Amino acid sequence: MFDRVIEVINSCSTFLITSHARPDGDALGSGLAIYHLLRGMGKDAVIYNQDTTPAVYEFLPGSRNIIHSMNSVNGFDAAFVLDCSEIERVGDEKDRIGSIKHIVNIDHHASVGTFSDILLVDCTASSTGEIIHRLLKYMGVAISVNIATNLYTAILTDTGSFRYSNTGSKTLMAAADLVENGADCRYIAEMIYETRSAVQIRLMGNTMDTLELFEGGTVGFICITQKMLRKEGALPEHTEGFVDIVRSIQGVEIAVCCYEVSRDRFKISLRSKGKVNVEQVARKLGGGGHANASACRIEGNFKTVKENVLGAIKEVSITR
Amino acid sequence: MFDRVIEVINSCSTFLITSHARPDGDALGSGLAIYHLLRGMGKDAVIYNQDTTPAVYEFLPGSRNIIHSMNSVNGFDAAFVLDCSEIERVGDEKDRIGSIKHIVNIDHHASVGTFSDILLVDCTASSTGEIIHRLLKYMGVAISVNIATNLYTAILTDTGSFRYSNTGSKTLMAAADLVENGADCRYIAEMIYETRSAVQIRLMGNTMDTLELFEGGTVGFICITQKMLRKEGALPEHTEGFVDIVRSIQGVEIAVCCYEVSRDRFKISLRSKGKVNVEQVARKLGGGGHANASACRIEGNFKTVKENVLGAIKEVSITR
Repeated sequence: MFDRVIEVINSCSTFLITSHARPDGDALGSGLAIYHLLRGMGKDAVIYNQDTTPAVYEFLPGSRNIIHSMNSVNGFDAAFVLDCSEIERVGDEKDRIGSIKHIVNIDHHASVGTFSDILLVDCTASSTGEIIHRLLKYMGVAISVNIATNLYTAILTDTGSFRYSNTGSKTLMAAADLVENGADCRYIAEMIYETRSAVQIRLMGNTMDTLELFEGGTVGFICITQKMLRKEGALPEHTEGFVDIVRSIQGVEIAVCCYEVSRDRFKISLRSKGKVNVEQVARKLGGGGHANASACRIEGNFKTVKENVLGAIKEVSITR
Repeated sequence: MFDRVIEVINSCSTFLITSHARPDGDALGSGLAIYHLLRGMGKDAVIYNQDTTPAVYEFLPGSRNIIHSMNSVNGFDAAFVLDCSEIERVGDEKDRIGSIKHIVNIDHHASVGTFSDILLVDCTASSTGEIIHRLLKYMGVAISVNIATNLYTAILTDTGSFRYSNTGSKTLMAAADLVENGADCRYIAEMIYETRSAVQIRLMGNTMDTLELFEGGTVGFICITQKMLRKEGALPEHTEGFVDIVRSIQGVEIAVCCYEVSRDRFKISLRSKGKVNVEQVARKLGGGGHANASACRIEGNFKTVKENVLGAIKEVSITR
């Protein structure tokens, strides 16, 4: 399948690169790596994401070139849709993007849709960034510092600093090669993990105050309301990583973050230490993701939502 | 120098393995790796550390075999002294250990003493564990799961999960090889980083809620009262690391944690990112410590205490 991707790269001239809305480090790092690759090859490449880049990722080389509206761009030969199991994940422009002639989908999610004709998927890879690294090695192209920094960030963030179970020896080998090619692991770690704002720390404080434990301490539940965000003057992106703090509690197997998107609409993020497949939990509730990290959206009041989530967790835990 | 180490291993039969008192992950992981290596070769090996193994490292394979008294052991052909720049670092038994005929010193510290005849030192290595990994590869011996787990932990902890500047591409390559040989990076990370209690997380939440910024956002101030501890059923030890969270805030140069020991008595912990010497701040208030980490005790009500600390910080910042 590498060859088909290379064929598209060689035969096309204008590319759109995109990934899922509310982008994370893997979505952005992977996209920007492809952007630098194509630009370096003299191709015409545009990188688009529906949502603005979270401040923590603004250090990524090329991040200022990401556009957030597709009104003034069109006529692409091909699109790279990255880190998306479904075309819907790109957001409002899914139809316009979906109608581009050649679509290359590079992803590491378990359940991948069939929206593209060229599918580069490996659900054993830690991240989309790791798969792109493999592609570049297969292509034999030089990995620039810009590419290395973006891909290292993609891998670092999707493995939680090489701590999640998706970290394999290949992941660490890829990271080593990226450092060899100029990724500065200290600088990147500092940008990612040591630039929290006071607002974020206060919001984290508020959020951890809501911590509840269920099922004998194996399920940790936190809640973030719009009222809490307003109180601290915080943005949705400030909540990133909170659910991982809950996962780090001794005895907790499943961490749940219940984020109030708007009145009676919640986004549920689920994390597992490995014993329970939270992808199955999310699927029961109409969402998806990975075995250890998944998400879904539920409507209803907080009490009902909590009951639904805990019910789904119980079902999956019993039947597994 | 690898050859001289191998010569000692081959020519000797009885070995003492030790490292510095108050051992960390590198000291313990490195020592236990050598222990498993020698035992696997049919050698007689004893592993000693002056201090008991911290609970967080009890999962290390072989950790129960570490002895903490040398009263009943003697007559060693050779000693491995690991992760020690000076023989004094092993503690009270330095003379007995220092008199063993052959001493192999494996270390990655910049300034290394001359207490041993066989010195395997590389201050560009992330950790002693990384150097031992190189030795094993040079020897061509099989790396068992027990050895891999110990060396991976040594590298992981000394690089702060591959985040410190001592992480190089070679470090990541070594980590990859150890994972290839059976080190379970998820399990090890969980043992090391994910054993916080729910009580501690809730207390952290409460504490971060008290965050105040002063001096244009360069001074971050948190407060922990006895009432907060009582509310969460927390112990003083649960507050460990909170001040470091404040230091990680963007723009903060000095982090202050004001801990209420008892009514009108406070313990002040200070952390600096490097620009301001907080040892000088603590000294002004009757305490002491290092340039980047210091402490003092102050009596008075919270308002006065806060004014005193901020006043001292201001004085030091102005005169530096």
